Amino acid sequence: MKLDLDPDRLFPVDPATRDVARALYAGVAALPILSPHGHVDPSILQADDPFGNPAELLIRYDHYVTRLMHAAGVQLTELGIPDRLSNAPVASPREAWRTFCAHWHLYAGTASGYWLEHEFSVLFGIDRHPDAGNADALFDLIQAALTTEAFRPRALFDQFGIEVLATTDDPMDDLAVHRALVADATFSGRVLPTFRPDAYLNPAAAAFTQNVARLAEWNGTAPASYEGYIEALAGRRRYFVDHGAVSADHGVLQPLAVDLSASEAAALFARARSGSLSPAETTAFAGHMLLEMARMSVDDGLVMTVHPGVSRNHHTDTFQRFGADTGHDIPVTTTYVDPLRPLLEKYGNLPDFHLVLFAVDETVYSREVAPLAGFYPSVYIGAPWWFLDAPDAVLRFRASVTETAGFYRGSGFIDDTRAFLSIPARHDMARRLDATFLARLVREGRINEQAAERIIVDLVDALPRKVFKL
Amino acid sequence: MKLDLDPDRLFPVDPATRDVARALYAGVAALPILSPHGHVDPSILQADDPFGNPAELLIRYDHYVTRLMHAAGVQLTELGIPDRLSNAPVASPREAWRTFCAHWHLYAGTASGYWLEHEFSVLFGIDRHPDAGNADALFDLIQAALTTEAFRPRALFDQFGIEVLATTDDPMDDLAVHRALVADATFSGRVLPTFRPDAYLNPAAAAFTQNVARLAEWNGTAPASYEGYIEALAGRRRYFVDHGAVSADHGVLQPLAVDLSASEAAALFARARSGSLSPAETTAFAGHMLLEMARMSVDDGLVMTVHPGVSRNHHTDTFQRFGADTGHDIPVTTTYVDPLRPLLEKYGNLPDFHLVLFAVDETVYSREVAPLAGFYPSVYIGAPWWFLDAPDAVLRFRASVTETAGFYRGSGFIDDTRAFLSIPARHDMARRLDATFLARLVREGRINEQAAERIIVDLVDALPRKVFKL
Amino acid sequence: MKLDLDPDRLFPVDPATRDVARALYAGVAALPILSPHGHVDPSILQADDPFGNPAELLIRYDHYVTRLMHAAGVQLTELGIPDRLSNAPVASPREAWRTFCAHWHLYAGTASGYWLEHEFSVLFGIDRHPDAGNADALFDLIQAALTTEAFRPRALFDQFGIEVLATTDDPMDDLAVHRALVADATFSGRVLPTFRPDAYLNPAAAAFTQNVARLAEWNGTAPASYEGYIEALAGRRRYFVDHGAVSADHGVLQPLAVDLSASEAAALFARARSGSLSPAETTAFAGHMLLEMARMSVDDGLVMTVHPGVSRNHHTDTFQRFGADTGHDIPVTTTYVDPLRPLLEKYGNLPDFHLVLFAVDETVYSREVAPLAGFYPSVYIGAPWWFLDAPDAVLRFRASVTETAGFYRGSGFIDDTRAFLSIPARHDMARRLDATFLARLVREGRINEQAAERIIVDLVDALPRKVFKL
Repeated sequence: MKLDLDPDRLFPVDPATRDVARALYAGVAALPILSPHGHVDPSILQADDPFGNPAELLIRYDHYVTRLMHAAGVQLTELGIPDRLSNAPVASPREAWRTFCAHWHLYAGTASGYWLEHEFSVLFGIDRHPDAGNADALFDLIQAALTTEAFRPRALFDQFGIEVLATTDDPMDDLAVHRALVADATFSGRVLPTFRPDAYLNPAAAAFTQNVARLAEWNGTAPASYEGYIEALAGRRRYFVDHGAVSADHGVLQPLAVDLSASEAAALFARARSGSLSPAETTAFAGHMLLEMARMSVDDGLVMTVHPGVSRNHHTDTFQRFGADTGHDIPVTTTYVDPLRPLLEKYGNLPDFHLVLFAVDETVYSREVAPLAGFYPSVYIGAPWWFLDAPDAVLRFRASVTETAGFYRGSGFIDDTRAFLSIPARHDMARRLDATFLARLVREGRINEQAAERIIVDLVDALPRKVFKL
Repeated sequence: MKLDLDPDRLFPVDPATRDVARALYAGVAALPILSPHGHVDPSILQADDPFGNPAELLIRYDHYVTRLMHAAGVQLTELGIPDRLSNAPVASPREAWRTFCAHWHLYAGTASGYWLEHEFSVLFGIDRHPDAGNADALFDLIQAALTTEAFRPRALFDQFGIEVLATTDDPMDDLAVHRALVADATFSGRVLPTFRPDAYLNPAAAAFTQNVARLAEWNGTAPASYEGYIEALAGRRRYFVDHGAVSADHGVLQPLAVDLSASEAAALFARARSGSLSPAETTAFAGHMLLEMARMSVDDGLVMTVHPGVSRNHHTDTFQRFGADTGHDIPVTTTYVDPLRPLLEKYGNLPDFHLVLFAVDETVYSREVAPLAGFYPSVYIGAPWWFLDAPDAVLRFRASVTETAGFYRGSGFIDDTRAFLSIPARHDMARRLDATFLARLVREGRINEQAAERIIVDLVDALPRKVFKL
Repeated sequence: MKLDLDPDRLFPVDPATRDVARALYAGVAALPILSPHGHVDPSILQADDPFGNPAELLIRYDHYVTRLMHAAGVQLTELGIPDRLSNAPVASPREAWRTFCAHWHLYAGTASGYWLEHEFSVLFGIDRHPDAGNADALFDLIQAALTTEAFRPRALFDQFGIEVLATTDDPMDDLAVHRALVADATFSGRVLPTFRPDAYLNPAAAAFTQNVARLAEWNGTAPASYEGYIEALAGRRRYFVDHGAVSADHGVLQPLAVDLSASEAAALFARARSGSLSPAETTAFAGHMLLEMARMSVDDGLVMTVHPGVSRNHHTDTFQRFGADTGHDIPVTTTYVDPLRPLLEKYGNLPDFHLVLFAVDETVYSREVAPLAGFYPSVYIGAPWWFLDAPDAVLRFRASVTETAGFYRGSGFIDDTRAFLSIPARHDMARRLDATFLARLVREGRINEQAAERIIVDLVDALPRKVFKL
């Protein structure tokens, strides 16, 4: 089946509206990519080694891709993921790739299918849809491309037009890779670390006690000292700021902030280290630390991003065999208005404090997130994330928030990806959808075309720069 | 007012997109009807008697239809439904029909209005909308048609192109009707029973204790024996399997699975029979039995369908006077991720176990159901059900689940109807909407037309066959 | 930038569908305005004084407008709102207006921006979008218009074609203004009071005890008497009925009805007056009083409107400095099915009882409100309110409720505004959107054009007259 990327893809089907969208898109298609939050490993840019093989690059680590094959009955070992609890044979990259190509029809209409199609066509010049028959030829074609200079990570970084790329990093990471990239005169891209402290804040995290000990050791204070713990977190944040970080990211089940006194917090902290907190106390302490993170963001200027609402590792057996990020993180009902109130009461009105609220429960957009962002100068609406990072979901998002909060309370597009090759496809998709949404409003007489031309440039460029203090 | 069925109904308004939809629909319009879940009484097919009269056939038992007139102030007795608590006069079929025709404008834009219009036009050749003036003439016209051979149930079954029709049956039903249909050489349709054990599993059901006793008697075990109870349920399921059943259906308020030990369950069972469980214990036992049903499905292969989220018989006085299924079952907030987890932890990864999750709270589609079905090989996304079984709701559904789960994790269309005459209208509607949704994606450059042609055939034919093991 | 109101604004972009919408709209564009719920101060009509200045008229009191500037970092004092806790300078009207014009781009795509654009163009003949450069000129232009006879409140009332305008009033208001308007032979408009008793029913209201005392004093009964309290409320409702009121409005966090015995209620009432109720008891008493209000509506015929789901005054500091209605009322998750059940069990089936259910959590439309209104003759679906009173939200609403409840279970459009000048813009918007929604259904072959012509007139005229007993 022919693969033929439609130059008008994602534009409205009505011809006159499509014309408007095409013109709006043209004004932003070539703007540099700002990626203030994502999960690319910075060492691939430091080393600049060729990528390994098609399966490792496009399948093995992309749980958006592996999950649909898993749902179709494919074992994760058949996709090259080893089973920690058995000696089950693990497919070779070529075998995994064949399995993927044979299941390509599963991706029709999905976000992953859309991005992969873009990558196949634009990056590799592929003009046939994958199938069982052409799997080997496609593997060889991509493999051959990956050995060329043009497909080295830094060359792609330039070709993609990436101006800023933020990574996501452990608070105790020494950021040597980021330092090396800054020091490297042959690389001019901005690669920024992001402070991601979940496992240091939530006593339910597996390594909480060890993480607390690592913080204390670095800080030269006693592991039992709550003051030392707070001081160490502030210190590590400062370390990240000194290495170019602009934001701290928080993955929480619910966006709960709890205002404990220092003595209450210290008492819980002591028992948290010994693992003796009740579930309610664990939640309270983690909520308290979210509030502490907001306080520190007010102090050090790091943008606070919150990614709530995902029940992680839903299938325990799969988690034990294959680890985290293997496709069974599932969204749950989320609410922001009451849980976040202690935080917003304290810091919500401070305009230099930036709080970006993401969501995977799309009911919150019109009900909670847009109204909050339409009042609090600190609150920005995070771009649709994860399962919602797809054309129809993005347009639903825009329609849900714009009438309440306008265009200037959003975060700008966030790719949030670990799939380096998908970055241009994702940003291009976002720009097309902005054009599509604006074109409809133009044609419905709700904004004029001149205003739309300004707005789309602001959405792509000015907003992420401002919100993430780039 | 003229009734003139638009051959392009439900297709997109944009001309070029409409052309694509029309072509896609043409490829599936005449495919046989697979109806793996519904509420048609099989004895109408066994007896093959003429239908009684228009009011009984189209109004009296269709609570989608009676409810809107009730909301407009019409008494249910005026629609032919007797009041068990009073001697209020009950309208004759002709009087009920007149009332319906006088209220026909209430159905504009509704799903019921759409189906009835299809039936009036296609089945009866009616070319005027019902109104007070033509009520008697329409009654006579339909009544006359019902007396012809062509309107006998079996003739309609053939004319409708029904290949498979599943009924919904009590676990203690002897299935004599189904047996008779199989044995009848003059009838070639497949009419399959479905195991529907709610009133045998939930101690809150009115007849729970009697139902348990009936199971025990059949099984030859003591009513007090929990082991006998479990054994009898498995035995009745096997009986249904032996009579062609492919699925077991579960109507629950919330899709809660609870993993009790056998001794805990037995203890609750003992007290359930005496009616002494607390509400929490009732919920726990019913949740345990949902998990037991999953275990048995793994054993006997019956597809497990779950229809959660409806608060039944909301208005007690109406329930007491007119019985169940009289229009006041109302959806409530539903969630699947945590409640179903014990079941999915145990059986979710087994590909031969099929679990179809329906919903009437449409917020769960993008948030929970599509993500679950996009990972667990056992989980399939139930077609939009009940209040959501209508054009705009179906398109919202498709847009909510496809980007996450693709096209191959759905159940295929389920008509779920007790209105035999509406079956072709409903399946035709579903096919038109599939064409409409796919046509938009084709025109937005997200799938190509060749892929869409394959997908729509799979949606209509391959998926229900696979999911329901037909 | 040119401001040029599109005569086809809000109509569908597809040309043939747009034609249908345009024709449908033409049939209702000039119908009189029925506004059965809103917040206009009736004394402006009694006094008929010229409006003060552009900032006071269009910005200062419109928290939809101030909130987006506040989110952009503008202090409320800069918009002319005094800070009760400081002597911070307060901007003059002209300064506030300049600030607004400089931030005009924030309103692109919002409901407020749409209404203001309509007002600027239609009322004032302005043909340029506001900006920092033309702020003073626009201020002067509007100010000059406001001094003319044509811009007096009564002249605008006539020019707008308002037939009925309901206000919202305190239960102890003597309604002298309403009486004076009725007595004034030079004013022929109907201006009706609305009974709004929240602060007299909910013990959590700041002035509850004083309000109870005021009721008792008026009634000549002891403040401690629960019977007297109930009698006084019924008496004040009667007083409102005698002054033309057609409805009683209830703003509640959750739509909870609680059925207490008179003795239980009296016991809680006694402790409510002394402020010693627990939160749960407060909720129970307020829920009981909601049920009492329904009972009284059955008696006195006042339509019962319920506006649930808003967390008021989310930012305490802003509330203390600037008061209520300053932009930080935020919607929360709402549910109706279980909480309202005691009320619907008792009164839901009475067709002369009218209960209009509004929502700001749009998930309830398809799940709960449409199904309830599709059965209970008392229940009507409130028009989308507050954050949902905008084009895309309104179309989502229509698509969510119509397939279940048809067109005849809605309240008709409710402007709910305190911005007098926005009334025609809002009703015009609603009529355009009704035309847009119906036109799509016509073109999709779901209703015929003749039916649509009748429906749109009913939506604009017959329904609000019937639902609000005008």
